[in-house]
Amino acid sequence: MSKERPPQGWREIAGYITAPLKYTAAAVRAGIKPNSQKKDLAVLFSEIPAQTAALFTLNRVVAAPVLVSQKHLRSSHGQAQAIIVNSGNANACTGKSGLQDARKIVQLAASALGIESHSVLVASTGVIGQRLPIDKMTLALPRALEKLSERGGAEFSEGILTTDTCTKNCVVESVEAGRTIRIAGTAKGSGMIHPNLATMLAFITTDANLTLPLLNKALRDAGEVSFNRVSVDGDTSTNDSVFLLANGANGVPKITKRGKSFDHFRAGLTYVCSSLSRQIAQDGEGARKLVTIIVQGGKSVQEAERVGRAIATSPLVKTAMAGADANWGRILCAVGYSGAAIDPSRVEIAVNNLQVCQRGQGIRFDESRAKKLLSQSEIQIEVQLRRGRHSATFWTCDFTEDYIRINASYRT
Amino acid sequence: MSKERPPQGWREIAGYITAPLKYTAAAVRAGIKPNSQKKDLAVLFSEIPAQTAALFTLNRVVAAPVLVSQKHLRSSHGQAQAIIVNSGNANACTGKSGLQDARKIVQLAASALGIESHSVLVASTGVIGQRLPIDKMTLALPRALEKLSERGGAEFSEGILTTDTCTKNCVVESVEAGRTIRIAGTAKGSGMIHPNLATMLAFITTDANLTLPLLNKALRDAGEVSFNRVSVDGDTSTNDSVFLLANGANGVPKITKRGKSFDHFRAGLTYVCSSLSRQIAQDGEGARKLVTIIVQGGKSVQEAERVGRAIATSPLVKTAMAGADANWGRILCAVGYSGAAIDPSRVEIAVNNLQVCQRGQGIRFDESRAKKLLSQSEIQIEVQLRRGRHSATFWTCDFTEDYIRINASYRT
Repeated sequence: MSKERPPQGWREIAGYITAPLKYTAAAVRAGIKPNSQKKDLAVLFSEIPAQTAALFTLNRVVAAPVLVSQKHLRSSHGQAQAIIVNSGNANACTGKSGLQDARKIVQLAASALGIESHSVLVASTGVIGQRLPIDKMTLALPRALEKLSERGGAEFSEGILTTDTCTKNCVVESVEAGRTIRIAGTAKGSGMIHPNLATMLAFITTDANLTLPLLNKALRDAGEVSFNRVSVDGDTSTNDSVFLLANGANGVPKITKRGKSFDHFRAGLTYVCSSLSRQIAQDGEGARKLVTIIVQGGKSVQEAERVGRAIATSPLVKTAMAGADANWGRILCAVGYSGAAIDPSRVEIAVNNLQVCQRGQGIRFDESRAKKLLSQSEIQIEVQLRRGRHSATFWTCDFTEDYIRINASYRT
Repeated sequence: MSKERPPQGWREIAGYITAPLKYTAAAVRAGIKPNSQKKDLAVLFSEIPAQTAALFTLNRVVAAPVLVSQKHLRSSHGQAQAIIVNSGNANACTGKSGLQDARKIVQLAASALGIESHSVLVASTGVIGQRLPIDKMTLALPRALEKLSERGGAEFSEGILTTDTCTKNCVVESVEAGRTIRIAGTAKGSGMIHPNLATMLAFITTDANLTLPLLNKALRDAGEVSFNRVSVDGDTSTNDSVFLLANGANGVPKITKRGKSFDHFRAGLTYVCSSLSRQIAQDGEGARKLVTIIVQGGKSVQEAERVGRAIATSPLVKTAMAGADANWGRILCAVGYSGAAIDPSRVEIAVNNLQVCQRGQGIRFDESRAKKLLSQSEIQIEVQLRRGRHSATFWTCDFTEDYIRINASYRT
C-alpha cells in the first residue's frame, strides 16, 4: 500500500471492489491455470445497469475479449452490468475461434443473469496463442454466478491474478450532500507492464452517477497520469483493459457538467488509479523495490513524461536499483537519450532526497549512506531539468534475476 | 564469429586492426580499471595521415572524448593519425575537468608522436561520472606509444574492452588492379547496446583511398544496417563512437566518385561492420545466445526496422529465448506494439526455420523439437508481414539472470 494521502474530501478505507453500493462479485477455480489450485474465473456484477467507461490496449494485435468488450460497449451505449474475467489464458492471437469462445462465455453469463449479452463485458489474461479451455469455463461459470455476493470482492481480486504475488485494491469514500460516494478498484499487473497500458487489467466501481461523456473523460484523465505512467518491462500487451462502472446507486444527484462535483469525483478516481498503479509497479515480476520517478522542470508535461519514461524503462537504471547502487550516470544517460531537448549541464538528480548530481556532474556524497538509502523497499528518483514548470511522476520497479527466472519459462 | 559469407570479391582473413598497411597499435595496463590486471589504455596509429570518418552517439549527454574528437575532426578536415582509447572510465558527465583531461591526453600523445593535436582522436568507455585517473594515464601513455607495432592489433582489441568476455575482430581483403585492399575492424560492446549506437566503440582501418565525402557516406550507409541494428538492452550510451581511417597506403587509385569501386569498398565495409555487430550482440552482457531477427514483407525499410527493433528490445521475447521457449505470442505482441500499421491476421513467424505462427495464429508444432532448436547458441526469428517487399535484419541476445548480476553492482 502507498504512503500517499488521498485528495481533500476523500478518505481511504479498507475494502474491495464491492464496497460501493449494489455491486457483487465472486471467483472460482475453473482449472484454466494448469497444475494450480488458484481461482481463475471471476465475475463482477452491478445489480443495476451502470454507465461504463473503458480504456483498452493500443497494441495492433488485440485479443478477442477486448474486441468483444469494445463492441458491446458500443452497442449498449456504455451500459454494462457484468464483467467475466479469466486468468491463465489471454485468448489472444486465437483468431475466429477465440472470438467465438469469448462470445460463448458472454452468452452463458447473460442468460444466467437474465440480462442482454451486450451488457456483459469480458477480460482475459495469461498465455497468448492458446485457445480457452471453454468446456472447463462453461462448467465453472454457473458456480461463480451462484456465489455472487457483496463479500466476494476479495476473491475477485485473487481470481484475476497471473504471476502477481499479491492482490491490489484501493477504496476511497467521500461524503457529499449527506450521502456517501465510494470508488473502489482492483487490478492485476506483474509483467508486460508499460505506459499506454500493458497486461494490466483494472476494474473500478463507483456508486456515483455521471453522464457517460463525463465518466469517460474522468477515466481518460485519471488513466493518463496513473496507468500510463507505470512500466515494468516496456512490453505493451494485447489484453490491457481498464473498466469503470458507475451505477449511481448512492442516490447523489447525477453529475451532468464539468465543475466542482466532477473535479471532486475525478480527484478520487485519480487517487484510486494511482494507488493501483503503484501497487502494480511494486509487484512487478521479480521486483523487490518500488521506484518512483519524479521529473520536474520540464518545458511541458510531455517533455517531463518523455524523460520519466526513459528512466523508468532503462534496464541499466533498474538493475542499479536492484543492486542499491547510486549510479546516477545511468539516470543522466537515460535523460540524455529520452529525446527531450534537455541541457545536461542544468540537470540535477537526487535519490531518496540525497543529491548525487548537480549541473550534470557528480557531487561528493557518502556512498555508504547512499547504499543504505537505496536498500530501502521504496526508492524515489528526483530529476530537475530546469527548463520549465511542468512535472510528471512515473512508477517502476527494480530489475532482478527473478524477473528473468519467471519469464524464461513462463509458457512451458 | 559468424557463419555469414563475405560479399563477392572479398574474403575474410585472420588478423587484427593492423592488417591493412601502415597501421600500428598497442595497449598497456594503466590501472584505470581498479583491482584488475587487464589492459585499459590502447593506441592506434597510422604512419601516414588518414582520411577519417566517424559516427557518434545521438545521446544529448555527450562524453568529453566525443566532444574532443568531433572538434578535432572538424578542425583537421577529417585527417587523423592516432586514436587514444581507454576502458574503465567513460569520462562522461565530468564537465569542464573532463574536457581538460581528454585534451591533456591528446596533447601528450601528439607531442610524443610529433603530430598536431587535432590529428589525435580519443575514445573512452566505462563508468560514468568519475574523473579520469589522469596521473596514471600520463604515466602509462609513453609505454603504450613506445610499444606501437604492427603486431599490436590483438592487444589493442583487448585494451578497449569493459565487461566484454571476448575480443571482437573482423578483417577482409580484396585484390583490385593487382593490389590488395584490406579493411579491418575491432569493437567493444557488451551492455548498453542499442540502435543509434550504444556504448559501443568500433575502430576500422583500411589502406584504401577515398575522398572524405565518400568515406563518410560509406560509413553512414554501412552503420545504418549494422551498428544501428544491434540491441542488447535498449540503453543508448554517452560515449558511442565508430571511427574509420583510410590511409591509402596500398597505392590503389583514389576513389573519387560513386561507382563500381565505391560500391565494392562499401560492400566490404558493410560486411566488417555487420560482423562486429553480430559479435557485439552475441557477447551481450550475460548473453548465451545470438538472436538474429529478420523482418520481411515490410511496406518500407523503415517499417521493417520498426518491427525488428520492437522484437529485439522486448525483454519478454529475450527472456523466452533464454528459456528456449517458442513463445511466438510474445513476438507477435511486439510486432503489434511496434507502431507499424501491420495486419495481425497476415503475420507469419518462424524460429530456426520452424514455423510457429501462420496468419496471426498459432499452428501445431512439435514442442520438444522447438525446445531443441531454441537451445542452440544461435537463434533466428523470421517474421513475414506480407505488406510489401522491404526487409531488415536486427541482432540481439537472450536476456539472462547474468545480465542482472553484472549490472546490479557494476559501479560499486
